Amino acid sequence: MNTTPVIDGERLKQDILAMGGIGGSPAGVTRRAFTPEDAVARAMTVDLMREAGLDARVDAVGNVFGRRPGEDSSLPVLMVGSHIDSVPDGGMFDGCLGVLGGIAVVRALNEAGVSTRGPLEVVAFSNEEGAWGAGTFGSRAFVGLLTDEELNAITPGGQTIAERMESVGLRPKAWRECVNPYPVKVYLELHIEQGGVLEAEGLDIGVVTGIVGTSRWSVTVRGVANHAGTTPMRMRDDALVKTARFILAVDEEARRADDMVATMGRVSVYPDAANVIPGLVRMTLGMRSMKQERVDLALARLQEVARSLSAVDMETIISKLPVLMDESLVNEIEQACAGMGLRYKRMPSGAGHDAMCIARVAPVGMIFVPSRDGKSHVREEFTAWQYAVLGAQVLLNTIASLA
Amino acid sequence: MNTTPVIDGERLKQDILAMGGIGGSPAGVTRRAFTPEDAVARAMTVDLMREAGLDARVDAVGNVFGRRPGEDSSLPVLMVGSHIDSVPDGGMFDGCLGVLGGIAVVRALNEAGVSTRGPLEVVAFSNEEGAWGAGTFGSRAFVGLLTDEELNAITPGGQTIAERMESVGLRPKAWRECVNPYPVKVYLELHIEQGGVLEAEGLDIGVVTGIVGTSRWSVTVRGVANHAGTTPMRMRDDALVKTARFILAVDEEARRADDMVATMGRVSVYPDAANVIPGLVRMTLGMRSMKQERVDLALARLQEVARSLSAVDMETIISKLPVLMDESLVNEIEQACAGMGLRYKRMPSGAGHDAMCIARVAPVGMIFVPSRDGKSHVREEFTAWQYAVLGAQVLLNTIASLA
Repeated sequence: MNTTPVIDGERLKQDILAMGGIGGSPAGVTRRAFTPEDAVARAMTVDLMREAGLDARVDAVGNVFGRRPGEDSSLPVLMVGSHIDSVPDGGMFDGCLGVLGGIAVVRALNEAGVSTRGPLEVVAFSNEEGAWGAGTFGSRAFVGLLTDEELNAITPGGQTIAERMESVGLRPKAWRECVNPYPVKVYLELHIEQGGVLEAEGLDIGVVTGIVGTSRWSVTVRGVANHAGTTPMRMRDDALVKTARFILAVDEEARRADDMVATMGRVSVYPDAANVIPGLVRMTLGMRSMKQERVDLALARLQEVARSLSAVDMETIISKLPVLMDESLVNEIEQACAGMGLRYKRMPSGAGHDAMCIARVAPVGMIFVPSRDGKSHVREEFTAWQYAVLGAQVLLNTIASLA
Repeated sequence: MNTTPVIDGERLKQDILAMGGIGGSPAGVTRRAFTPEDAVARAMTVDLMREAGLDARVDAVGNVFGRRPGEDSSLPVLMVGSHIDSVPDGGMFDGCLGVLGGIAVVRALNEAGVSTRGPLEVVAFSNEEGAWGAGTFGSRAFVGLLTDEELNAITPGGQTIAERMESVGLRPKAWRECVNPYPVKVYLELHIEQGGVLEAEGLDIGVVTGIVGTSRWSVTVRGVANHAGTTPMRMRDDALVKTARFILAVDEEARRADDMVATMGRVSVYPDAANVIPGLVRMTLGMRSMKQERVDLALARLQEVARSLSAVDMETIISKLPVLMDESLVNEIEQACAGMGLRYKRMPSGAGHDAMCIARVAPVGMIFVPSRDGKSHVREEFTAWQYAVLGAQVLLNTIASLA
């Protein structure tokens, strides 16, 4: 009865659509962590897991685990998953694909009568999007990176994160129970790319080599605010003009090679009046790369530009190092793709994922599928169904090979 | 008893300080039109006029006139003045100097026993700063440019401008009474420069040649908002980077010669999130010049830049032509300066003034005195007392010569 396991694509599609209906509206999917919508999605996940024969449990912080026994239950767990919360007005694929794809893998294994040596576990980590406080909340709890301080932080509306968690039946005070409960052999995460590279290059699958490091600065540019009519050009120190030079220097620096991105996403001008020369500009500068030394070099060059412009200050607000995927898992995923005759390429992930945290306790690997128009975190987020199914099949074949 | 009239500088200083106390606080002077503070300043102006022997009256829209009879009262009026309202947290010189300087001129004429052929009138026009609706309100009423529509416009707080006026005892419905009540021979306005040119060049007086035209556009730059981590540089259409190029093109254009200024004062970036590539930028572009053809040329070149960047739209929101001072008045003021041995130069006004409106019905002239650090519309606004007094003396000598 041991046949080749195959993903039931139609069922996977139905599951994604069903979960997309929880918190769904014409504006997109809004299923922020620790809200009633999130709790309903968690209950649905537990139901789907049990229906697939998994032993499901929800931990103190809302992570959902569904275990399929292995031939030897004392062996470390082979873990697959992602998250089921969303950003406000987001899409139905981000996160859900990895969780529902994991459940689809289990169904396929069951159907084909294939067992694994060690236990296989599907996980849905909680609050990956950081609806309240920082993201990758559940996976950080799992590796021991949560703090009581974070749980007691006040959220908009006045409740602490812990109070929000309690309001949906979780047990935040017991978060230490969630830390490192058993050894993980590997963690695999299927996810949408959230960028447009795979689509532009006509590829089916991205084999993730790592998650880029993220550095962010608050940049302040000082000039002198003055009357826009009575101050001749030669007497001006216009903060916005200096800012424009800095923006172009950032853009040029990031385009020197295809190994980093840089973005100035937030900009505020003061006093922001049509007839006053801008005296102050504040903005954010974010740089991401798989190579920390590349970001360090770019920073050094931009600090030089800042000095030449005068009165440009850069203050670090985030500094996260790149995280590498496990090289042997990258090879396994590539071989699975090759075995299926797919078009694939190795690529970094420009966005953060739960895999980034789990990498602290286990080898991790990630599989990307194309995002239509490169869009994510918006209602237009979409992955053609055949790619969603192909991604799940790659996940399945990688597991079959590993186990 | 006909001696040479001389400004009482100490008295002028005391009047400026006294009026600066109405609405004054450590944050600056806040005497917005049609507020109780504005009404107190109007009452003080009437008192000072009467004390100087003037026949004072307040018209329906809040303009204050104080008339000194001439030898022949049938002759057109020689008018001097400015305004007594202020911007929020402004200074004590803007406007007041012209009104209180005019009263000082009358006192000096009285003291010296000098009469004028036609009547001399000191005026304080209402709502020059545009606390509600557009500025130069009172002087526009005087020349017939007000509309019922403007009076019925709703202001922040829910009242119409007319209701605000009624709340301080004015009669907005009767505004047509204020229009062109009698012929004006000339209008002279003493004002602070509000820029830093006179100070930088070590001059005492600016002889104003005209008021620059003001054109303003709403500029919209469209790109594509996308994930700041997952979108490679080569796949971006960053609205902020295009905006930076446009800002530098504007700055370069304005610096081609010393005959115009250009300012981008308001800037909003959407969605304004650190991890999202800006998809849209909206900003204001203002250009001012004494030469309308210079602005037209700059506009044509910037429209070329906008086309080359693609998805940059410019929509006109203000278009005011330059207003020339009367050449013979410019000569009279210059001769007064020369006669006093002052350092002076001809210069345009970069800011709008009541004189701009009165130019529609009479020849106008303006006298500028230096602004410390070029600052205005802020609490630091200051003009050294000797310059304030010199300016009033130039006004006095010009009137003596004209009359």
